Amino acid sequence: MEMESSPIGTRRLESLTDGVYAIAMTLLVLSITVPRFPPAAAAEELPRFLRYRLWPELSQYVLAFITLAAFWVGHVQQYHHIRRISSNLLWLNNLTLLLVALIPFTTAIAGDYGNIGIAVRIFELNLLLVGMVSYWHWAYATRNHRLVDPGLSPEHIKNTRHGMLIIPLLSLAALLISLISPDWSTSVYFLIPVFYHREKIRHRLEKKR
Amino acid sequence: MEMESSPIGTRRLESLTDGVYAIAMTLLVLSITVPRFPPAAAAEELPRFLRYRLWPELSQYVLAFITLAAFWVGHVQQYHHIRRISSNLLWLNNLTLLLVALIPFTTAIAGDYGNIGIAVRIFELNLLLVGMVSYWHWAYATRNHRLVDPGLSPEHIKNTRHGMLIIPLLSLAALLISLISPDWSTSVYFLIPVFYHREKIRHRLEKKR
Amino acid sequence: MEMESSPIGTRRLESLTDGVYAIAMTLLVLSITVPRFPPAAAAEELPRFLRYRLWPELSQYVLAFITLAAFWVGHVQQYHHIRRISSNLLWLNNLTLLLVALIPFTTAIAGDYGNIGIAVRIFELNLLLVGMVSYWHWAYATRNHRLVDPGLSPEHIKNTRHGMLIIPLLSLAALLISLISPDWSTSVYFLIPVFYHREKIRHRLEKKR
Amino acid sequence: MEMESSPIGTRRLESLTDGVYAIAMTLLVLSITVPRFPPAAAAEELPRFLRYRLWPELSQYVLAFITLAAFWVGHVQQYHHIRRISSNLLWLNNLTLLLVALIPFTTAIAGDYGNIGIAVRIFELNLLLVGMVSYWHWAYATRNHRLVDPGLSPEHIKNTRHGMLIIPLLSLAALLISLISPDWSTSVYFLIPVFYHREKIRHRLEKKR
Repeated sequence: MEMESSPIGTRRLESLTDGVYAIAMTLLVLSITVPRFPPAAAAEELPRFLRYRLWPELSQYVLAFITLAAFWVGHVQQYHHIRRISSNLLWLNNLTLLLVALIPFTTAIAGDYGNIGIAVRIFELNLLLVGMVSYWHWAYATRNHRLVDPGLSPEHIKNTRHGMLIIPLLSLAALLISLISPDWSTSVYFLIPVFYHREKIRHRLEKKR
Repeated sequence: MEMESSPIGTRRLESLTDGVYAIAMTLLVLSITVPRFPPAAAAEELPRFLRYRLWPELSQYVLAFITLAAFWVGHVQQYHHIRRISSNLLWLNNLTLLLVALIPFTTAIAGDYGNIGIAVRIFELNLLLVGMVSYWHWAYATRNHRLVDPGLSPEHIKNTRHGMLIIPLLSLAALLISLISPDWSTSVYFLIPVFYHREKIRHRLEKKR
Repeated sequence: MEMESSPIGTRRLESLTDGVYAIAMTLLVLSITVPRFPPAAAAEELPRFLRYRLWPELSQYVLAFITLAAFWVGHVQQYHHIRRISSNLLWLNNLTLLLVALIPFTTAIAGDYGNIGIAVRIFELNLLLVGMVSYWHWAYATRNHRLVDPGLSPEHIKNTRHGMLIIPLLSLAALLISLISPDWSTSVYFLIPVFYHREKIRHRLEKKR
Repeated sequence: MEMESSPIGTRRLESLTDGVYAIAMTLLVLSITVPRFPPAAAAEELPRFLRYRLWPELSQYVLAFITLAAFWVGHVQQYHHIRRISSNLLWLNNLTLLLVALIPFTTAIAGDYGNIGIAVRIFELNLLLVGMVSYWHWAYATRNHRLVDPGLSPEHIKNTRHGMLIIPLLSLAALLISLISPDWSTSVYFLIPVFYHREKIRHRLEKKR
């Protein structure tokens, strides 16, 4: 009876979420402009485009893709332990997806105008918000083991919560750097794989003790 | 033998439906135009665009996303209880998807021309139709417990049916308001989360009695 | 050992297929042009566009959506009985998807140039080919019950095979009509729901005997 | 405890992967330009476009689709035997998806500028990289049966590994040919079905011995 107002199983929520992530990841590529040159000039203009203009757009694509992948991994890690879905959790997830689906737009803005502060900051703000809502989502689900496996260790809950802070903290750093140098500020997101690896190194060191 | 003419399980219907919703939600973002400024003017034009022109498109995106999410939640709630699929139900669902896949188009029209009555009304009419077909879909599936779990309580059937009326009624209100003020009429959809919450409050009050 | 060269279960093939159908259905909407009017002229031009120019594009969208939905239903009906996947069947399915993913393109051509014979015929040819490959797919899977449930009745196999002929035959009719009147030829696809209903009526009559 | 740092089951990884492949396959069609002719000229210009300009774009679409399908089949073959996912494998898969999602872009470049060496080579390089990461992915998962079914025969592991080399080797051939004739170099990918068939023929011959 208690569940009747929100009989949403995790299966379809995961299916919708995987769909939104897969599409957002693939739509990112639309932010890379396919240039239209007149046939006569193409042989000369295209190599120049690929060498000079493509790199900023491509590197913006790569870091947006890595960030989306990291958010998706975070979602899978959370739902590995979430057992039931309340109406509040459902709408927190919908809010995450709303912000995730915006990423191809803010990526395109930042890729096209990478040297303009506000263009870069709108992208970094977008990632900051996704990260904060993901953190909130996990904190909500785990408070008093509300919606997770009752046997889940408090340490695991805390570790996962800390992992959810990586991208928000990187985004804050990026926003600060953007005040000095917009061009370089988004590079901080390339540290994401390093952070994931660091976690692993620490785990290994802990096991050795 | 009875099922032979429509051997469609709920699994693949749900998979197609989740896909269509995920894509429609993510395509909404394409309705937000990425402006193309000449490099020299961009530093001045882009902030102006983001401050003044982006808001109507972004708020249109947010309310279309919330509405799609609410329709999707309604679909999950219905199929939580639907046990088999007849040919009629299958085509009612296809009709819903046909109307859902139109939403990115009507959202783009309403986002670009938010002050023109007909642009806004075509969006509101789209949502009205999705809502009405969803209502019809549930009414069809539950008549004499035709396609749902036979043990499902008549009260639950009725409550879910009433829930399916929220968006059609809001759409009628929006259409009426649009006759006076197109700009503000779509704002009624921001009440959707309130209605979902109201449902919850009522449930809690009923439990206390 | 026999299966080792193609260890593809039906689950992932269905998942990829549902994805391609869901995306093709939703991309159809991109074939409907969102017009760009200068702000001053929009209040006058937009209603005119919606009343006169939208209808041909919208009706093209509706019939392409119905046809895609009918193909998808055919796929679900086939895989309801298919038990294992050979390498040949897998590539027949990939060929179907290749042709299905073309439909948004041929729909856009036919929607934009509905009065030009070749534009309409390229769309009808596309549907003819999808239908023929689907027919071939079922014929291949069922020959000597090669890949289907051994208990499947020959009558059911034949009935399903005949159902796979509906769209190819309608496409041939459409191609013939297009030689006289391109504008009207695609209307034959609106008969698809009628054919599905006819099937049902016949089934009912057969049961009464 | 060992799995705690990467509790990702194969189910959601497969779901995300199927989504990315389905979308990349369907977005390929956007690389085929729908031409915009003035209404008066359309009846004359459109047939000319369809006869002369469409073929290079369409053949580029077909071979990109076949290659994506072959990569997808390779992924399904690998995950048929993979039992658990380590953090490294997860990020190797994410890297594959990052490169797969680029294919619609490089396909569009190669389709638009098929006679320019660098345009064609960027497409072939893209496929080479996807193929090499897929090879790496399988080599990583199977080293000492790290993440696969312990009973999997070394012969099967080797055969699958060799299968993963087909597209990289074809890509190297294509890159070499492109130095002489860009226009024809991508045609080597049409050999993919032949290679898949050759595998089958060899299997049959081996069984006869």
